[in-house]
Amino acid sequence: MNYPFACKEKYSKNVVDYRNRGMDLETLINSANEYYIEEDKAIIYKKPTPIGILHVDYKQNRIKDAYFKDKSTFDYNGVYRGRYLDFEAKESHVKTSFPLGNIHEHQILHLRRILRHGAISFLIVSIHDEYYLLKGEDLLDFIENNTRKSIPYGYFKEKCYKIEERIRPTLDYLRVVDEVYFKGE
Amino acid sequence: MNYPFACKEKYSKNVVDYRNRGMDLETLINSANEYYIEEDKAIIYKKPTPIGILHVDYKQNRIKDAYFKDKSTFDYNGVYRGRYLDFEAKESHVKTSFPLGNIHEHQILHLRRILRHGAISFLIVSIHDEYYLLKGEDLLDFIENNTRKSIPYGYFKEKCYKIEERIRPTLDYLRVVDEVYFKGE
Repeated sequence: MNYPFACKEKYSKNVVDYRNRGMDLETLINSANEYYIEEDKAIIYKKPTPIGILHVDYKQNRIKDAYFKDKSTFDYNGVYRGRYLDFEAKESHVKTSFPLGNIHEHQILHLRRILRHGAISFLIVSIHDEYYLLKGEDLLDFIENNTRKSIPYGYFKEKCYKIEERIRPTLDYLRVVDEVYFKGE
Repeated sequence: MNYPFACKEKYSKNVVDYRNRGMDLETLINSANEYYIEEDKAIIYKKPTPIGILHVDYKQNRIKDAYFKDKSTFDYNGVYRGRYLDFEAKESHVKTSFPLGNIHEHQILHLRRILRHGAISFLIVSIHDEYYLLKGEDLLDFIENNTRKSIPYGYFKEKCYKIEERIRPTLDYLRVVDEVYFKGE
């Protein structure tokens, strides 16, 4: 029953991949961050994957057994215009909404904490072949005032900030950060 | 010829370990950071060890081959009093000086960059059974104006900020950050 839809999804995904030179959201953000460092615009890095090391072969200096730990913070952080920036990138695999199950409870706790301490924090969400900046404050507001388990696509169109694709970097998200957090400065 | 000195070093190290309940510098800082999060004073984490994954057993969801990547940034970062904080912890294994070879060239580049963007950045150095905060600016200044390959102990006593040991947290380094970076605020 779902075959035609699945095919359509696959096809449309291929189109997006082609437009972005085959780059997924993480690659797009890593590439933007490299560009920002080169241009001395911001110093933002992806945090390494948290792992628990069980066995190291010291002769080879190689990890031979390790497990993936749960993430309790966001993936990217750094400094921009003197401020602490901390954010997460998420791809929605459905076109109509962004499932909140994508964000762990520990990450919500982290978000509340850093906002209280003056961080700039947001999600970059890829949905419906588009990219949006969802402010951390708006995410918390949505969670507190809704019983829904996902954020509908319409919410992004209406309340979030669209990140337009460009040549270099493809995903110039700091341009949107400027508009949202530094307007008039 | 070096035997008596080596023995003395070892003995004195044991004494320090006992005083700090067997905790090395990293453990002391991690423990302070946990305390700061509990007390909602600051949100600072150690970055996971950067690794390159070569083989994952997907059935077990376990990493079966990986190597350690070189660090090009500092180990700890986060937000404190609205500012971006980024620092490194280093233990000097000699009592008379801190060898600059302990800091990679990429880390010095990282330090220059983040300072330019408004970060608070420093080293916490454990030397001679004491702990000092060495401002990033002072480290750069030392490197630029000296041909020495190590910072003598006397420099720490004279120019750096001593972090006194306390009960909880043992290494309350933010107390020194307050004095050095937020004086009069």
